[in-house]
Amino acid sequence: MQAITIRQPGGPEVLEWTEAPDPTPKSGEVLVTVAATAVNRADLLQRQGFYPPPKGASEILGLECSGTIAALGEGVENWAVGDEVCALLAGGGYAQKVAVPAEQLLPLPKNVDLVAAAGLPEVVCTVWSTVVQTAGLNAGHVLLVHGGAGGIGTCAIQIGKALQTTVIVTAGSDERLKLCRELGADVTINYKTQDFVEEVKKATDGHGADVVLDNMGASYLDRNIDVLAMDGRVVNIGMQGGVKGELNIGKLMAKRGGVLSAGLRARPITGKGSKADIVKDVRERLWPLVEAGAVKPIIGRTLPMAQAAEAHRALEASDVFGKVVLTA
Amino acid sequence: MQAITIRQPGGPEVLEWTEAPDPTPKSGEVLVTVAATAVNRADLLQRQGFYPPPKGASEILGLECSGTIAALGEGVENWAVGDEVCALLAGGGYAQKVAVPAEQLLPLPKNVDLVAAAGLPEVVCTVWSTVVQTAGLNAGHVLLVHGGAGGIGTCAIQIGKALQTTVIVTAGSDERLKLCRELGADVTINYKTQDFVEEVKKATDGHGADVVLDNMGASYLDRNIDVLAMDGRVVNIGMQGGVKGELNIGKLMAKRGGVLSAGLRARPITGKGSKADIVKDVRERLWPLVEAGAVKPIIGRTLPMAQAAEAHRALEASDVFGKVVLTA
Repeated sequence: MQAITIRQPGGPEVLEWTEAPDPTPKSGEVLVTVAATAVNRADLLQRQGFYPPPKGASEILGLECSGTIAALGEGVENWAVGDEVCALLAGGGYAQKVAVPAEQLLPLPKNVDLVAAAGLPEVVCTVWSTVVQTAGLNAGHVLLVHGGAGGIGTCAIQIGKALQTTVIVTAGSDERLKLCRELGADVTINYKTQDFVEEVKKATDGHGADVVLDNMGASYLDRNIDVLAMDGRVVNIGMQGGVKGELNIGKLMAKRGGVLSAGLRARPITGKGSKADIVKDVRERLWPLVEAGAVKPIIGRTLPMAQAAEAHRALEASDVFGKVVLTA
Repeated sequence: MQAITIRQPGGPEVLEWTEAPDPTPKSGEVLVTVAATAVNRADLLQRQGFYPPPKGASEILGLECSGTIAALGEGVENWAVGDEVCALLAGGGYAQKVAVPAEQLLPLPKNVDLVAAAGLPEVVCTVWSTVVQTAGLNAGHVLLVHGGAGGIGTCAIQIGKALQTTVIVTAGSDERLKLCRELGADVTINYKTQDFVEEVKKATDGHGADVVLDNMGASYLDRNIDVLAMDGRVVNIGMQGGVKGELNIGKLMAKRGGVLSAGLRARPITGKGSKADIVKDVRERLWPLVEAGAVKPIIGRTLPMAQAAEAHRALEASDVFGKVVLTA
């Protein structure tokens, strides 16, 4: 098969569309003929050598894909050759074929295009496992989403609205904020010109945010606690603003608040806190919202997989609204 | 009635046993003739002027009491004059009489002495609402309790064992640790001579602590994250080691961990996250364990209320095992 391989850790130019060995599905896995994959921020780190794949995972980039089942490994039930699917991957998506544990498959939702579906698994599983499962987002809550115009952000806006919460987002340009409003965001904040603590307080009559989905880490830590409502939760899924920040436990305690942190990739395939648990819950509770059109994949750009370098440049420049999808 | 009043913020000597106006139960409250109250660390702060009572609460110290219902305010059902009770208070316990919202009453548990019961409400509601309700402690977990020999710690040991967890405690003397082991602690760590991260890892084959109940705050923050198991939670209920600490979000994220913080006093009487919710859950799920003798009030010292100053000195010196109770 053809796949994107990394000549050596470095800039986007190290990504090469080359011949690579076909994967073989192990027991419990299926082989998927990839229709498309999507680019995640973690891919940029992995390309630079900072985010090695977990033990046993493919060295090839790509944390999600869509495609058609080409073969079943031993012991796989409930799936058949020819099924159209999308899947959460520990790696291997930037390729024409990938082997996936059956627990990480989701059926192609009705009314979603097979290529566009490649942009769903990572963002829906990330948002669902953090804001809903970990932070307990519920109807009536105020959800603050930092980076509202990105892949995670555009998904969080839609899930927040589908769950009947008030959704507030930050982004870095008025044009991106306008697109967030069109997706359903109730309040938008330009972090370059406005103070998000002040704006959230103003928009919620002083209540604050019950859940903050954060991709900045250290640089926002103190203000994320300032913006919290009583019993609120900050969930960190990124550290674009640094790793170590000062935590004021007194302020946190006065709000009975919490700072939580979660990732998908290192989770076990099955068992407690596993990808299987998340995928199952997503399929049962979120997939109906996707099939009803309430949560859609937001694809800002689609490129052939061979142009992965260009896709990485676009994501690094933060000039894509939603996801960048790569077709096989 | 007689009550302890505070001449002016300061040391234990400002506490005076004086005449004070009788409280009157408002609608939804009951009047309790106090048998005993118990001393909490928050009382020491309030005596020094650092922890003012919430709006509407009594200015008198005392966050819990036991006693007998002397009168019912308007609209109170399910309780009768003469009932023996203990109660969570927003204040007012250091007195011969106190008015309490009916939602904050618990029946005197079978097999518990009325005076000793004064030491139960604050610790059981604190431990239950933090380690069980907030941090999700479950059978099979490892629970690390800092300050295992104090009022909260001695209660947490027993609740941890009753819920079939492995309980590890820290304390500052081998004598206090011995008493913790007698209460059921599986592993004890002298924080003056041992490194708790290393000792917990050693005792759990590298697993770490699923839940850490912390009273130190900033000074333990980084090591509390080091000691966490995957998906673990630190719950801060005190800041004896400082308010502001450096949080390494990268380490937290690698463990999908969380830092939570919670207090009781500022919670609303009813509604979401209220004292009523906690008391109800404690009564349903924990009271049977108390009545079965699995969770007992641990009273290190009992003094007449007029000697409150002496009780404060003892707690400040950390030389009491469990609670200090004051009789009316």
